[in-house]
Amino acid sequence: MNAVEIIKKKRNGGVLSDTEIQYFIANYVKGKIPDYQKSALLMAIYFVGLTNEETLGFVNAFINSGKKVDLSHIKKPKVDKHSTGGVGDKTSIILAPLIACFDVVVPMMSGRGLGHTGGTLDKLESIPGFNVHLTIPQFIKNLETLGVCMIGQTDDLTPADKKIYALRDVTATVENTGLITASITSKKIAEGSEGIVYDVKAGNGSTLPDLEKSRELADKLLRTSRDFGQQAIAVLTDMSSPLGYTIGNWHEIYECIEIMNPELKTNSLSSDLMEVTLYLAGAMLMLGDKCSSIEDGIKMSQDKLNSGDCFDKFLKLVEIQGGNIDVIKNPHSYRKAEYTDYIEASEDGFVTALDALTFGLVAVTLGCGRKTIEDKIDYSAAIFLEKKSWG
Amino acid sequence: MNAVEIIKKKRNGGVLSDTEIQYFIANYVKGKIPDYQKSALLMAIYFVGLTNEETLGFVNAFINSGKKVDLSHIKKPKVDKHSTGGVGDKTSIILAPLIACFDVVVPMMSGRGLGHTGGTLDKLESIPGFNVHLTIPQFIKNLETLGVCMIGQTDDLTPADKKIYALRDVTATVENTGLITASITSKKIAEGSEGIVYDVKAGNGSTLPDLEKSRELADKLLRTSRDFGQQAIAVLTDMSSPLGYTIGNWHEIYECIEIMNPELKTNSLSSDLMEVTLYLAGAMLMLGDKCSSIEDGIKMSQDKLNSGDCFDKFLKLVEIQGGNIDVIKNPHSYRKAEYTDYIEASEDGFVTALDALTFGLVAVTLGCGRKTIEDKIDYSAAIFLEKKSWG
Repeated sequence: MNAVEIIKKKRNGGVLSDTEIQYFIANYVKGKIPDYQKSALLMAIYFVGLTNEETLGFVNAFINSGKKVDLSHIKKPKVDKHSTGGVGDKTSIILAPLIACFDVVVPMMSGRGLGHTGGTLDKLESIPGFNVHLTIPQFIKNLETLGVCMIGQTDDLTPADKKIYALRDVTATVENTGLITASITSKKIAEGSEGIVYDVKAGNGSTLPDLEKSRELADKLLRTSRDFGQQAIAVLTDMSSPLGYTIGNWHEIYECIEIMNPELKTNSLSSDLMEVTLYLAGAMLMLGDKCSSIEDGIKMSQDKLNSGDCFDKFLKLVEIQGGNIDVIKNPHSYRKAEYTDYIEASEDGFVTALDALTFGLVAVTLGCGRKTIEDKIDYSAAIFLEKKSWG
Repeated sequence: MNAVEIIKKKRNGGVLSDTEIQYFIANYVKGKIPDYQKSALLMAIYFVGLTNEETLGFVNAFINSGKKVDLSHIKKPKVDKHSTGGVGDKTSIILAPLIACFDVVVPMMSGRGLGHTGGTLDKLESIPGFNVHLTIPQFIKNLETLGVCMIGQTDDLTPADKKIYALRDVTATVENTGLITASITSKKIAEGSEGIVYDVKAGNGSTLPDLEKSRELADKLLRTSRDFGQQAIAVLTDMSSPLGYTIGNWHEIYECIEIMNPELKTNSLSSDLMEVTLYLAGAMLMLGDKCSSIEDGIKMSQDKLNSGDCFDKFLKLVEIQGGNIDVIKNPHSYRKAEYTDYIEASEDGFVTALDALTFGLVAVTLGCGRKTIEDKIDYSAAIFLEKKSWG
């Protein structure tokens, strides 16, 4: 068994065995197989695809490359949500504290902004002091005491996936449903979730703009999670226009605060965000065995938002992770952006479409995201949509 | 323009512009584009292919990466031959001195053994003292005085191809007709040949075992050479069984000496080798404007072999490149292999096939080739075929 033979086998349409996948990944992580052989294999996989068995092989190899979080001593359901990435997609900020209100533990490991899509970690870090770099023991402790913790992937969890993900990004080998599935599910299994709701985005602002590909990805995510004994629900949601009315890290937190804090008025332009968030909440509560239908779960979630319980939980979450809760209570006190500009329509009419991809790319240019890994994010930078097609 | 966009464009079936190809290759040679991006592009090309225009773009980029040999001051036709590689394929050893007998200059740059196929440089180096590492000025001087020179690709000629070829070998991206064409033709144009005969091998011992692929490669080689103003002929020859009766460096030289030296008897088992060699010689003489048909060229070539002129030229070639001509005159004096074994058929019968690939692989194991770049070749190691299917 050697790297070239394995690449050639895949290139020729063959199916790799568990042993071959394990050999390749383990030696890649050790640095014994170089990046250039890995990227050749990734491109061959891009064209040939992965069977379900091969995908499982990659998931196992990714998990085996690091540690696994053991949450079995916490005798409560553990449910997470994962989104494939979008523009203005801030559902996690609301969902994590909301679901934790129901005695469902939410062990949430998120990512950073990538390309035109935003990242939950960047949004959280716009809150002064908020620390997303907790160790696994701290992560477990917070889950025990508060029932929710939001952090980034630690170095000791699926390090193979981390290394390969970085390589895929610079070799144009991201958009393959098998590789995406292996990357997502391995993290979600290693983090200790028993149930997982997948928010698979479709439309031009998503990673896979082709609807059929999104469906295929949803199928693979479900099948793979279930093969590992996780309960899973996948929801296909529209990402052809931005979710809610804000794009940009702090202002997305602000939009969530408006939704969670009963003392503030929720903006009517957040209605699409509300719809997606509540549906995902219903699905998470279903997996947590807290309701008998998603519709029931939606109603229960709406109540927790109205009562202020969710906002209280969010304040505790921010506090326990070192964040400044004064700014959460008084969001208007946040540092203002230095420059502001209004773009007005050149003529009267109705908004019929808001191109999510374009908004995402413009937001990155404004400083809401990074063009290279070294770029610094400007947390105050944002785009506000003052009209939406249904607004 | 950046590397990821170029990889993505090719991956999505796009056609790269000359500027994009030049950008990628030039930056790759400078080390600004890393191996892992180049190997991802190579694998995408493996699947998508290269158009004729793209192939020309790669040839130009390869040539532009280094120097070009200028032979315009030598007022004689300059004709070379290139084989896509086989087992027992020793035609170059005879062709180079043979064609030079006709006042046709032969500027031959060859390669080393690769995988199961042998290499002309390794065969020449089995002659004690023979130096294949001449500089370009020495190469030109020998062409001026003797009309023939046989060397390896120098570092300053198409360095991009050299770097990429090494990468293709370890990333399973060799077998693509566009990439093979760009690699071969760029070297043959840069070395200063005006005419080139391509010996494209077909059958299980060749690089492209599929006959249709071999035909496609022959077409691309012809088209590309002609686009650069070279005259070209392609000959498809059978490589399903080894050529001649010897496999192994010195013993292949020995078989050629038997053919070239009129004082020795040519082995009847060399008849297939003779057929291919004479046909290629006829084609080279056609390109050199020395005959009006390949058949005439074959007859003329046979005469030069019979007269001993070719052998005299070979002796001069060996001498001028530092080789020991005593061992060429008395080939029996060469160091014998330490161990000898006979493999006999287990029952009576007729030889119906000799599997070239298997013989090539066994020969490498015996020491006739290298498994890794560091391996040392045993020049005495060889396989002798005492019966062939027509013998």
